[in-house]
Amino acid sequence: MASATRTVSPQALRDFAERLLTAGGFRPEDAAKAAELLVWANLRGVDSHGVLRIPRYVEMVQQGLINPAATPKVVRESGAVALIDAGLAPGATGMESVTLKAVEIAARSGAGFCVGRNVTHAGAIGYFAHRIADAGLVGIIMTASKPLMAYPGARGEAVSSNPLAIAAPSADADAPIVLDMSTAAVALGKILAARDAGRAIPEGWGMDGEGRSTTDAAQVKALLPMAGAKGAGLSLMIEVLCSLLADNPIIAPALGGADPVGFNGLAIAIDPDAFMGRERFLANVQALAVAIHGLEPAAGTEAVLLPGERGRRTAAERSRSGIPLAQGTATKLAELAARLGVEALPV
Amino acid sequence: MASATRTVSPQALRDFAERLLTAGGFRPEDAAKAAELLVWANLRGVDSHGVLRIPRYVEMVQQGLINPAATPKVVRESGAVALIDAGLAPGATGMESVTLKAVEIAARSGAGFCVGRNVTHAGAIGYFAHRIADAGLVGIIMTASKPLMAYPGARGEAVSSNPLAIAAPSADADAPIVLDMSTAAVALGKILAARDAGRAIPEGWGMDGEGRSTTDAAQVKALLPMAGAKGAGLSLMIEVLCSLLADNPIIAPALGGADPVGFNGLAIAIDPDAFMGRERFLANVQALAVAIHGLEPAAGTEAVLLPGERGRRTAAERSRSGIPLAQGTATKLAELAARLGVEALPV
Repeated sequence: MASATRTVSPQALRDFAERLLTAGGFRPEDAAKAAELLVWANLRGVDSHGVLRIPRYVEMVQQGLINPAATPKVVRESGAVALIDAGLAPGATGMESVTLKAVEIAARSGAGFCVGRNVTHAGAIGYFAHRIADAGLVGIIMTASKPLMAYPGARGEAVSSNPLAIAAPSADADAPIVLDMSTAAVALGKILAARDAGRAIPEGWGMDGEGRSTTDAAQVKALLPMAGAKGAGLSLMIEVLCSLLADNPIIAPALGGADPVGFNGLAIAIDPDAFMGRERFLANVQALAVAIHGLEPAAGTEAVLLPGERGRRTAAERSRSGIPLAQGTATKLAELAARLGVEALPV
Repeated sequence: MASATRTVSPQALRDFAERLLTAGGFRPEDAAKAAELLVWANLRGVDSHGVLRIPRYVEMVQQGLINPAATPKVVRESGAVALIDAGLAPGATGMESVTLKAVEIAARSGAGFCVGRNVTHAGAIGYFAHRIADAGLVGIIMTASKPLMAYPGARGEAVSSNPLAIAAPSADADAPIVLDMSTAAVALGKILAARDAGRAIPEGWGMDGEGRSTTDAAQVKALLPMAGAKGAGLSLMIEVLCSLLADNPIIAPALGGADPVGFNGLAIAIDPDAFMGRERFLANVQALAVAIHGLEPAAGTEAVLLPGERGRRTAAERSRSGIPLAQGTATKLAELAARLGVEALPV
């Protein structure tokens, strides 16, 4: 974290984000959903998916890449599956509709599968998996976007860093397990930061223009996938599940020189009551959490954590003491506020 | 490959495997399914999941860890989900029943979600995902087993190397895309194969009893997860999806000192006809395959391959020229054949 930061209360940041997005063209209800999603990420320490995205979202409205007038529509629904066309609605609105449809289907079918096409940038998708867990179901979320990651054996950007999130509710209602992972080895932001600081990066983060791993951040032309072929392969299958089922391919057209607009997403919700019952399931998740917490820590480790637990701890801390806002982010948001004639963050 | 190998025709190896398993207590139909699965792996070059497993399977029958008299039973079915209890039937039989049930449900519900408990070792799970793709559907397979992999920040074995396979059919019917990955840096089977073949293993595959990385396959006491916390977290969520939904937890009881028997598995089948139609989907998969194949190869790379493609090429080659059998594997199988009074492999 840079030294020149200020802290903001979650509610003040949410209100500010909502004002900015509304002035930027979002409908108030969509601005509220987007602000909730962005500040959720900031609270959990995932600042890369927080309010720093707002200027780009406003720009995307101006460029027609987000359509703030769109309302997601169900275009197919039968049995346990549905397909939603979000029409380039703001990502929080698009993915929420996909998520809620999966939950609705699971209530009648035991499991629900909803694919969403033309969703836009959906931010920290762990949020949507968490929403499914909050409804007492197991949630799986994936989203697919444009090439920015290497593919084993090839030069340049080929696949996306498509993320996968899986969440499960627990008998401890405040402690769902929430895995939220990118298929890239590392977030692009870490490479950009090293480049700005003139620092070397470790092997395995980025690839140069010749298709070789590089430690020179300035030479990075594509992110490297996590675990090599596994990360790239998983990303490719997420494209299959999200984009090809929706007949809205992204990777093939992009590699062919087109410039596809929008993302696609998938939500799966699974009702433990359709199996051995919710009570048994919740108790099993809690027992698993207790067992992992009970592992003997390795040297230098204070506590063994579950997926999502570090974020939850950070959220508890930031709820009390405020969300630190990097100076660069604060400045950009203040400039946007001035430009849009929006009330600034309270000092 | 060690120099002291012999090659065997796929059919001769299948017949031999079937004889061994039948003599070892499997019913003939279960032996045939297991032999098909094992030799499928050998054909594709995944010798770690091939016939070298047979002596252990026979031992598991003797120890009551596989029940060759069991027939998988549907214990819950509603809407788009089902739960099967495989009753410790041989793994190929158990996972086949789970897979076929998911396909059956998808035919009526657009997607099918089947959890199987008390399946035993299911081998190369890509086989089952491939079976779903052969039926024209998208397939997702996961299985959950006992601790044998490290968890970040903890000592010793904590989670399993639970694998994930995803397969999609293509308009090129002979070329489904089949991702089959372990959540470990490498599958345990590859370490077993290296041990059998007397080969060293690379750094980063496994830890010895002292918690150090080792290149001696015989000294490995715990696998390392792929991509650190991501691999361990994904493995944990596979335990949630396979074992906790089935109310048949493995990890928590094992960490508590119990010795849980059997594996759990999950099959998801998704029908493209429930979305934008199979024809469009198959064409999209083919276009994606063409785009990936068309990527400019990196220095030193001949061709850019899709998930499962190397295995398919190996299978074509081994179908023609035979399956190379490591000397260690051949010797163990010959000893088992002698002990069970089973006709040996033709020389």
